[in-house]
Amino acid sequence: MTNEFVDLKENMTVEQAFQKIKKIGIDKETIYTCYVLNMSRKLIGVVTAKDLLLADRDKLIKDIMDTNIISVNTLEDKEIVAKTFDKYDIIVLPVVDMENRLVGIVTIDDAIDVIQDENTEDFEKMAAITPTDDSYFKTSVFGHAKHRIIWLLLLMLSSMITGGIITNYENAFAAVPLLVSFIPMLMDTGGNCGSQSSTLIIRGLAMEEIKTKDVFKALWKEIRVAVFVGIILAIINAIRIIIQYNDINLAITVGITLIATVMLAKSLGCILPMLAKKLKLDPAIMAAPLITTIVDTCSVLIFFNIAVMVMNI
Amino acid sequence: MTNEFVDLKENMTVEQAFQKIKKIGIDKETIYTCYVLNMSRKLIGVVTAKDLLLADRDKLIKDIMDTNIISVNTLEDKEIVAKTFDKYDIIVLPVVDMENRLVGIVTIDDAIDVIQDENTEDFEKMAAITPTDDSYFKTSVFGHAKHRIIWLLLLMLSSMITGGIITNYENAFAAVPLLVSFIPMLMDTGGNCGSQSSTLIIRGLAMEEIKTKDVFKALWKEIRVAVFVGIILAIINAIRIIIQYNDINLAITVGITLIATVMLAKSLGCILPMLAKKLKLDPAIMAAPLITTIVDTCSVLIFFNIAVMVMNI
Repeated sequence: MTNEFVDLKENMTVEQAFQKIKKIGIDKETIYTCYVLNMSRKLIGVVTAKDLLLADRDKLIKDIMDTNIISVNTLEDKEIVAKTFDKYDIIVLPVVDMENRLVGIVTIDDAIDVIQDENTEDFEKMAAITPTDDSYFKTSVFGHAKHRIIWLLLLMLSSMITGGIITNYENAFAAVPLLVSFIPMLMDTGGNCGSQSSTLIIRGLAMEEIKTKDVFKALWKEIRVAVFVGIILAIINAIRIIIQYNDINLAITVGITLIATVMLAKSLGCILPMLAKKLKLDPAIMAAPLITTIVDTCSVLIFFNIAVMVMNI
Repeated sequence: MTNEFVDLKENMTVEQAFQKIKKIGIDKETIYTCYVLNMSRKLIGVVTAKDLLLADRDKLIKDIMDTNIISVNTLEDKEIVAKTFDKYDIIVLPVVDMENRLVGIVTIDDAIDVIQDENTEDFEKMAAITPTDDSYFKTSVFGHAKHRIIWLLLLMLSSMITGGIITNYENAFAAVPLLVSFIPMLMDTGGNCGSQSSTLIIRGLAMEEIKTKDVFKALWKEIRVAVFVGIILAIINAIRIIIQYNDINLAITVGITLIATVMLAKSLGCILPMLAKKLKLDPAIMAAPLITTIVDTCSVLIFFNIAVMVMNI
């Protein structure tokens, strides 16, 4: 924010405004939007240089000023300020205090910086990194480690649950060791499907293309996409399993697990970011790493349960 | 791009420029930056409304115009155009053809849209989605499936390699079934570490905070972070394994694998996006999904090889 703006009075003429701009404008951040203040410095109108240049020079400012003022409050969140620029397609915004007194202006180049910082923060959160304002090389090794270790630890502890579940099915993979070889494929595919959905939803929420009230509309879309994608992946796996191992029960087990995992991953990828938003948390934390960990646990559970049933282990 | 700009001649006075702006300015996108053209409409100077308002009215345009013009070519990539706004902190850019004739202007609000589109594209690519210009709800179920299935298939086929490697170690996990339960934790941790590094590098490259010539500087940083983070994760795992299973060899196997996996994941997360950039590919494709799949294969290989050695299986 800067206070380098031109202030005018409502009883000035356009010619007097030109004189004032010529006298004090050289030091100002912008002269293209001038603010009309009353005696107690309250903001009562806005005049652009365009209004001035297009008006006759003997007109009074109060006759050409716009009293329908878009302004932001000193306490406003900077992300809201950035969005206001986008919404109204303006290049400068007046900042007023609680009594509507003009305290400064913010310009659109500040807004671009805020938008980019916000995007960077989302990228970082979505990759399980605690966001930081420092650039990559300016952050020390210890700083980088600190920003990454917390989520890594949390996710590692959660993925141990999946490991714990696997030990419960020792008998199953003792009988059919081949089952183990499908774990990476199921985990990766589940993770990738969840990552796709959560990224689209998180980005849609950030760009305000998706609202939390659309949750069922989005979920219904994700479920249909999941069925479609899940069936294709299941068929390709089935073909491969039958060619390689000639085992129809294994093909069915892997196929059902895949479809169930993809549906679960895409549903969670859709619901969790929207739930976070509803709870006033940042949707970006409900991204790939967290969803992958949850889906992993479920897919392993589904896989071994179906295997035990279908393959009579 | 629009051609709604005010064009001036170099021999006009400031007063004449004001008259022209007053006459034609009402329909123009901007009157704050006026372009001075010669007889063949070549761009020879730029005059801002600020220059005009601060100058005496009998001055000639050629005496106040800026001949040091920042312009873009009609053939320029829109991402470059967007970056030019950011670089020079300007709100409007003239677009010229090959003969330096002014054909139009682009304004900063177009640039913000381009920046946001570019960010969305990166988010999508980094989540293994083929980018699209349509919004989430405007894209059909079939459209969504089409944009997601290609990468899912590719990654699924790659993760089968990891599965194939696991079948080679049937004897190892037949002897020690507990080994299998560490696979999810190793895969997830490797994936998360790779995701963290690749996201920071991809974003750093996009924001031009990191250059491809910095590859060794970045790699050296990532390796040190990896050693630090890997040792912490290994120690926590070792404590848990000794408490739960009282098996020092297992603790050593898991610990060494973790440190090696984290180092590999962070190195690949650093090198691959920079290599892509060097090869004029989009670094965003070298993100979490692809790196996770590569790291999975390696971590399983490392894990079973170390297990066979350390645990005498």
